[in-house]
Amino acid sequence: MLEFILKKAEGPAAPRLGELRLPRGVVQTPVFMPVGTLGTVKAMTPEEVQELGAGLILSNIYHLYLRPGVEAVAALGGLHKFMNWPGSILTDSGGYQIFSLAPLRKITEEGVTFRSHLDGSSHFLTPEKVVALQQAIGADISVCLDECPGFPAPEAEVRRAADLTLKWARRCLAARGEAANSLFAVVQGGMLPELRREQAQAFRELPFDGYCLGGLSVGEDKDTTLAILEVTTPELPEDKPRYLMGVGTPEDLVEGVARGVDMFDCVLPTRNARNGMAFTAAGKVVIKNAAYARDPGPLEEACGCYTCRRYSRAYLRHLFLSREILAYRLLTLHNLYYYLHLMMDMRQAVAAGRFAAFRRDFYEKRIEGGNTRG
Amino acid sequence: MLEFILKKAEGPAAPRLGELRLPRGVVQTPVFMPVGTLGTVKAMTPEEVQELGAGLILSNIYHLYLRPGVEAVAALGGLHKFMNWPGSILTDSGGYQIFSLAPLRKITEEGVTFRSHLDGSSHFLTPEKVVALQQAIGADISVCLDECPGFPAPEAEVRRAADLTLKWARRCLAARGEAANSLFAVVQGGMLPELRREQAQAFRELPFDGYCLGGLSVGEDKDTTLAILEVTTPELPEDKPRYLMGVGTPEDLVEGVARGVDMFDCVLPTRNARNGMAFTAAGKVVIKNAAYARDPGPLEEACGCYTCRRYSRAYLRHLFLSREILAYRLLTLHNLYYYLHLMMDMRQAVAAGRFAAFRRDFYEKRIEGGNTRG
Repeated sequence: MLEFILKKAEGPAAPRLGELRLPRGVVQTPVFMPVGTLGTVKAMTPEEVQELGAGLILSNIYHLYLRPGVEAVAALGGLHKFMNWPGSILTDSGGYQIFSLAPLRKITEEGVTFRSHLDGSSHFLTPEKVVALQQAIGADISVCLDECPGFPAPEAEVRRAADLTLKWARRCLAARGEAANSLFAVVQGGMLPELRREQAQAFRELPFDGYCLGGLSVGEDKDTTLAILEVTTPELPEDKPRYLMGVGTPEDLVEGVARGVDMFDCVLPTRNARNGMAFTAAGKVVIKNAAYARDPGPLEEACGCYTCRRYSRAYLRHLFLSREILAYRLLTLHNLYYYLHLMMDMRQAVAAGRFAAFRRDFYEKRIEGGNTRG
Repeated sequence: MLEFILKKAEGPAAPRLGELRLPRGVVQTPVFMPVGTLGTVKAMTPEEVQELGAGLILSNIYHLYLRPGVEAVAALGGLHKFMNWPGSILTDSGGYQIFSLAPLRKITEEGVTFRSHLDGSSHFLTPEKVVALQQAIGADISVCLDECPGFPAPEAEVRRAADLTLKWARRCLAARGEAANSLFAVVQGGMLPELRREQAQAFRELPFDGYCLGGLSVGEDKDTTLAILEVTTPELPEDKPRYLMGVGTPEDLVEGVARGVDMFDCVLPTRNARNGMAFTAAGKVVIKNAAYARDPGPLEEACGCYTCRRYSRAYLRHLFLSREILAYRLLTLHNLYYYLHLMMDMRQAVAAGRFAAFRRDFYEKRIEGGNTRG
């Protein structure tokens, strides 16, 4: 079971500092969770992820359910043993994936019927089953099945999806039983501030271990995302963690922390690495650029990661253009290091009461070095 | 400069034990050199290759010449610094690649004109230039430009190519100057035992640091390869290393050592790993096989590699079917471990005077467990 210790909060929608006490270790918040959709943080070994400082990763029950199958993972001792990960795991319910990946989905109050994006096979999942699946693979933190409406969507559709998500969340709570793992709810409500507020108020009455903010960064502009965040977080229980799902860029992490978010995940650091893009304090580095052909410097001068201490931009460019696996490894290592150190820096800034100065400095560095390199 | 210490030789075409003393370390022979064609042993970091026990890797001047370019590598401090490899490097001349990869090649006595397999650009290389290129990137051991005839090929063609290779080798010797790196010749001669013998006799009069056996395992049957080996090695200087280029399977390594070969390279352990095939003492494991879907055991029960000590066949199968980069990494680690430990076992067997027993045992294990798993 999860224990969340809120160590500091600067306000209802302001930076917070906390601790997630999980059976497999303590995780400091705000935290970024590297994404290991299919039981592997892409291109990394578990040891590498751990050495980067991550203690909590994200996986996805929708993906694992389809491949290799929950029964197989359970028969092999659960997800931790299967992938040899000694830290903690949060599994997303797959709500977002069912609505974004699966063709021919059909939603009823009872649950959702969908076809696999892998082989077209038909499946039916209910809130209860999704809780059971996550328990079966031994997730430390489970997430309720939710319906993520498209964007843009008619108001009636957004309201219906939010109400169904709330009903399903109540069923997930009832279904969890005496299981030792934790259960997070997903708050939906589209881009309607009033609905988001109502939903948060309804959810706060239910004894969840944490609250996810779903259905954001789905195509809306940044100001809308932040406005929704600002109306939602003040309505959530102060003593429970808040997790902004699938968001986002370094800027998004800074703005999320600024508005009281405790947990983040996103595929950007790992996916962009495989596309040849590195995150640095000054902005992005697109490694295939001809300017790097003979550049002996590291991706980022001040960076202490394995990649920056050993390899030149010229070598990384060569590996990437040659489609060498080592390119994806080295860029992934750097990007995860960047994301995890950004979170560490933010925790230190909040602890020292200088988050505002940190945030100013963060943007100044980007303006100076600039995204011009991209 | 290379010093080769022959510590033991059981006969002119029989197992040998030696030591290659190179500026960056001592390498025990018989040795297998992992292949790092483009300045990376595919899917591995240099640290991983070193931890596996490799002190000498192979790279290829043809590939590096085309991408990223020899001038770039030299400007960045040479190949060792470029790829961050602390051990020794042997570069193949690219003779084989020019004749197998490049379209529209044209050979004259002066050199070879060819088009790049990457972008169709036209290039002209001479024996002198190939020596200079390898020196420019700082290869510890360079290889003379050779002409590798096709297979099958008319006898006149094979003879012409062998003679040209010999002439070019003399020019390479003259071109090496006072360079500190070593230079190996390539002995050609197709599948003509008499020609191979003559060529070896001509080469042995020339002061090379080692002798490559080229143009083998190019389509001929195994018995032919071995017969050619058996007539060639007795004609080569006993006190110089013999390197069988691009060969081969675990069986090929055992039979090569049995016939007095000191050095090997082959893409099989790394390439087959990326195709989902693992080498084990019992035979090959094709990891995608359905039989492994819930197999909790390692690739190989007795194996001490990183992969076998941590991951199940079921997990490896899942990663491979999901095309996860970690699959290629873990299988590559295992296969290189298998190859390097096979060589270590052979060195121990030769040292203890029990190579015949080792060889018998090697085949018995394969018959028992069998290639039937594949």
